[in-house]
Amino acid sequence: MTAQTTPAYTDILYEVDGPLAVITLNRPDRLNAWTQVMEDEMHAAMLQAEADEAVRAIIVTGAGRGFCAGADMGLLSGAAESQGTREPRAAEAVSDDNFDQKFSYMLKLKTPVIAAINGPVAGIGLCMVLFTDLRFMAEGAKLTTAFARRGLIAEHGSSWMLPRLIGNMNALELLFSGRLVGTAEAERLGLVRSLPAEGFLDAVKTYARELVTTSSPRSIGVMKGQVYRAMFQNLSTAWDEANRLMVESFESEDFREGVSHFVEKRAPAFTGR
Amino acid sequence: MTAQTTPAYTDILYEVDGPLAVITLNRPDRLNAWTQVMEDEMHAAMLQAEADEAVRAIIVTGAGRGFCAGADMGLLSGAAESQGTREPRAAEAVSDDNFDQKFSYMLKLKTPVIAAINGPVAGIGLCMVLFTDLRFMAEGAKLTTAFARRGLIAEHGSSWMLPRLIGNMNALELLFSGRLVGTAEAERLGLVRSLPAEGFLDAVKTYARELVTTSSPRSIGVMKGQVYRAMFQNLSTAWDEANRLMVESFESEDFREGVSHFVEKRAPAFTGR
Amino acid sequence: MTAQTTPAYTDILYEVDGPLAVITLNRPDRLNAWTQVMEDEMHAAMLQAEADEAVRAIIVTGAGRGFCAGADMGLLSGAAESQGTREPRAAEAVSDDNFDQKFSYMLKLKTPVIAAINGPVAGIGLCMVLFTDLRFMAEGAKLTTAFARRGLIAEHGSSWMLPRLIGNMNALELLFSGRLVGTAEAERLGLVRSLPAEGFLDAVKTYARELVTTSSPRSIGVMKGQVYRAMFQNLSTAWDEANRLMVESFESEDFREGVSHFVEKRAPAFTGR
Repeated sequence: MTAQTTPAYTDILYEVDGPLAVITLNRPDRLNAWTQVMEDEMHAAMLQAEADEAVRAIIVTGAGRGFCAGADMGLLSGAAESQGTREPRAAEAVSDDNFDQKFSYMLKLKTPVIAAINGPVAGIGLCMVLFTDLRFMAEGAKLTTAFARRGLIAEHGSSWMLPRLIGNMNALELLFSGRLVGTAEAERLGLVRSLPAEGFLDAVKTYARELVTTSSPRSIGVMKGQVYRAMFQNLSTAWDEANRLMVESFESEDFREGVSHFVEKRAPAFTGR
Repeated sequence: MTAQTTPAYTDILYEVDGPLAVITLNRPDRLNAWTQVMEDEMHAAMLQAEADEAVRAIIVTGAGRGFCAGADMGLLSGAAESQGTREPRAAEAVSDDNFDQKFSYMLKLKTPVIAAINGPVAGIGLCMVLFTDLRFMAEGAKLTTAFARRGLIAEHGSSWMLPRLIGNMNALELLFSGRLVGTAEAERLGLVRSLPAEGFLDAVKTYARELVTTSSPRSIGVMKGQVYRAMFQNLSTAWDEANRLMVESFESEDFREGVSHFVEKRAPAFTGR
Repeated sequence: MTAQTTPAYTDILYEVDGPLAVITLNRPDRLNAWTQVMEDEMHAAMLQAEADEAVRAIIVTGAGRGFCAGADMGLLSGAAESQGTREPRAAEAVSDDNFDQKFSYMLKLKTPVIAAINGPVAGIGLCMVLFTDLRFMAEGAKLTTAFARRGLIAEHGSSWMLPRLIGNMNALELLFSGRLVGTAEAERLGLVRSLPAEGFLDAVKTYARELVTTSSPRSIGVMKGQVYRAMFQNLSTAWDEANRLMVESFESEDFREGVSHFVEKRAPAFTGR
């Protein structure tokens, strides 16, 4: 395995393993509690993966036994003491682009983003996870919104995205209660897919590797954009766009390969172009 | 228990029990069939609960063995005979505020509203229930849209809200068929959570009491508004609003308490401010 | 049984059986692979059924052991060779009416459309099925989006409708992977209802016949329009519309019958007016 590591990050690890980029939240002694550095590094690593032609899927996971414990309590205690003087950074409030918020930039990447929730995830860590495309969760892990137990609100897009993923009633109940939700319940809610804890990350990698081999990476990238834009479109607009994208796809290498390998009854060899 | 009762209502009961206001549809000899008086009284009682600082959650339930049998058949027969001369009251058609319709005013209350469906619920009773935040249903109860079996239509916001709660196909099937749906199926559809019939209302009260003790009532109120406004917002608008509300929450008593009780490893004592 | 057949179609069968119109995709030697002729004929047959006062529900199914294998590979291979010179027909790109796209015209029919998925369904066949009102699927059948394995995109409204039916994560996963999904999983996803393969079409017909007998066909037609329009409406608009439609229903024969048969404790005899 010729995994390649970029050592420049401090709060995450970034590794490219064949077609997969793996971003690991890496403050295991703090259950990977969220920091501004971690946020900036994750964003940079995502853009790095998106720009890398070899990368066809991004996996986000946590180092050690947790995924992300939420905001670092140091930050929160600071906010409690300073009572609101901690302003969100100017940039946060500026953009009115649905795909240019703290985590929603992931929705406009062509590369699919897969969360591998290896252990507990809370608060801002859960908010981030809501903006990944696919979510796997290890048996025995727990998730919680946490906010209401700290006197906080539905932060970072969770009020908008969580109800769209699991319905209003379940979203309200998880937000109101801040209770711990196990993997089986999270799967029943439609929020994640469950996998055994034993060999968890390897299983997610195997899924992702097979996905980007049997499906055209070009198709996946186009489809991802279609689905997220469709959240804000009329049906007629989405249909018109699909008609144009369909015609464009007829000119692609991946379409020719998609038909050829089927007709020739062999495994596909997609280039992503 | 020093429950306090307001005896001024005729078609409902209103009782405050600690942090809980319980509104009971109270025409048990008619399975609590809906009347205009009941509607007006429920609205008044909801506003009364919202204005009461001691009340942190509202429970709506039915007296006797039913929850609500739908519109009183006297009203319906009248409409059948008068053939349309029964106009909706002028006020019903006037407001273009999403949160100012017959039942949708509940969505803008800060106080969470919990339906305790103790027995059969049909027609307008079910429509009302769709606009509560959380729905518990006793094993053995039944629900039905009923309208299509009377030659009626998807009344009182149900065409809009039901599909958003259980998806288009299931909503169409329940509206088209008007069939009876049991508690287990209603839970599978994501419409309610099931609880045993034995001790049903007590179980709902226990849930609600624990909810508003372990979670900040201030947080719950803010989150509720966020989730329902988000149904009509762009993601960027919801995110921007969340950033402002987050900063505001840092100045609240409940946030200081939320951090303090966590750091001090003790039960929270939220004031709701 | 005095079923009446219209023999003018070549790629479908159209049969009226009592209150039911049955449209059968009829290229069984090609697993009913989709053709432009099939599409035009299905559209014509739907309008024929909608105009027929005797027809109260439309069932769409496939001849032989399949439902629809997707686009005829002859068409696709042609597109691969001509590399994009196969333009969508001018009409496809013209309308900006949500209810006037390739398959979405079904949403504005008053007659409910029920898919009876008797066997494998793929690609464009699945897209079509997403725009029916109710979907039954025979045990042992399979469905697949298929597109990503051919280098294609989320065609024909699927990027918009599939996420609204089964949620974003499951829609992305089915679109990205193009994998085969069995009946039990499709039911868990909320996409279909499962029925035994043995006697499948008869069971769907029995369901449909009972539906349009116990429920007012007028009610079903109005409700269907309400639910689909509500996907594009504010709550207040939907509520206002429901108030008007409610008053109109009071003047209908079906409303008088709906109340009468209930009061008289007899089976209903709805006229649909």
